[in-house]
Amino acid sequence: MRPPLAFRPGDTPSHHFHSTVTLRKLRRFNSLILVFRVTAFTFSLASSVFMVTNSRGSGSPHWIDFDAFRFVFAANAIVALYSLFEMGVSVWEISTGATLFPEILQVWFDFGHDQVFAYLLLSADSAGTAFAKTLKGTDTCTASAAASFCVQSDISVALGFAGFLFLGLSSLLSGFRVVCFIINGSRFHM
Amino acid sequence: MRPPLAFRPGDTPSHHFHSTVTLRKLRRFNSLILVFRVTAFTFSLASSVFMVTNSRGSGSPHWIDFDAFRFVFAANAIVALYSLFEMGVSVWEISTGATLFPEILQVWFDFGHDQVFAYLLLSADSAGTAFAKTLKGTDTCTASAAASFCVQSDISVALGFAGFLFLGLSSLLSGFRVVCFIINGSRFHM
Repeated sequence: MRPPLAFRPGDTPSHHFHSTVTLRKLRRFNSLILVFRVTAFTFSLASSVFMVTNSRGSGSPHWIDFDAFRFVFAANAIVALYSLFEMGVSVWEISTGATLFPEILQVWFDFGHDQVFAYLLLSADSAGTAFAKTLKGTDTCTASAAASFCVQSDISVALGFAGFLFLGLSSLLSGFRVVCFIINGSRFHM
Repeated sequence: MRPPLAFRPGDTPSHHFHSTVTLRKLRRFNSLILVFRVTAFTFSLASSVFMVTNSRGSGSPHWIDFDAFRFVFAANAIVALYSLFEMGVSVWEISTGATLFPEILQVWFDFGHDQVFAYLLLSADSAGTAFAKTLKGTDTCTASAAASFCVQSDISVALGFAGFLFLGLSSLLSGFRVVCFIINGSRFHM
C-alpha cells in the first residue's frame, strides 16, 4: 500500500524509491533540527532580554554604555531572529514535506547561516566574558548598589554560550543535510 | 601508458579508475591545503611571539598579568603547533601519496581539529579584543611609557585573527575532503 504522502509534481520517477521508512527517518531528523532550533531560540532570546533589561535606573551602570555588552545583545538578538525564522522553515518542511526555498538553496542557506552565526555568537560571548571579567575588579561591580548589574551580565553571557551550543548542533545537522544533498541530489539521506 | 604512481598494496582493482588527471587534481588540492596551513602557522606563530615578548621590563605592564592575553597566547601557540603538525602531514601526503594515519581517521582528525581550533582561536581573539579595548581607557595605556605595550597587544590580536581566517579556510577544504570520503570511500574527489 502506498503511503498517503504526496510527491511534488516535478519529481521524476527515480525519486519514488523513497520508502515509508526513509520518509519516517527524514521526519525524525527534521524534528531533531526543530528541537535544536527552538532551544537555540530560547537561550538567545533569554540572553538578549537579560542584557536589554540590565539597568537599575539612574546612578547605576547601563548595559548600552559598554561596547562588549552591546555586541552580546546584538549577536543574541540576531541569532534569536534567525532561529525564529528557521523554526518556521522547519515547521513548514515537516508539515508540507517540501522546503520553503528551492532545495539546493535551502540546504546551503541553512548551513552557511548556521556557521556564520555560530562564529558571530561565540565571538560576542567571548568578548562579553572578557569584559565582564575585567569589570569585576572595578568600582562598577564592587559598589553594592551595582553588584546585581554584574551578576545579570554574567547570566546573559552564559545564556548566550548555551545558545551557541545549540546553534552549533543545528549547524552539524544542516552540514549533514548538505552532504546528503551533494551525494544524492536530494536532502533525503538514504 | 600507465603513470609511474604506485598504488598501495591494499588497493582493490576498482580504485584503478583514478586517472592521471584525478591525481594531478588531488595534488593541486593538497598543495592548496599546504599553503593555507603554512599561512595559518605563520600568523599564529607571529601572534604568539608578539604576545610573549610584550613586556618592557619592570615598571611596565606584563602580558602574563592579564587573563585575556594569556588566552590569546595559549590559543595561538596551540594553533601554531597544530598547523606545524598538519604541514608535516600535508608534505608527507604530497610526497608519498598516502595519508599518515589510516585514511578515514586522517580526514576526520583534520576536519574535527580544524573546527575546534578555529572556534578556540576566534574565542581567544575576541576576548583579547574586548580586553585590549577596555585597557585603552585606563592608565595602563595612557602612560607614555606603556603606550607601546598596548600597540603590541593590538598587533598580536590582529595577527591572531589573520591566523583564524586561514585556519577557517583549511577547515573548509578538510570538510570537503570528509564529504569526498563519505561519497567515495576515498579522499580522491573524482
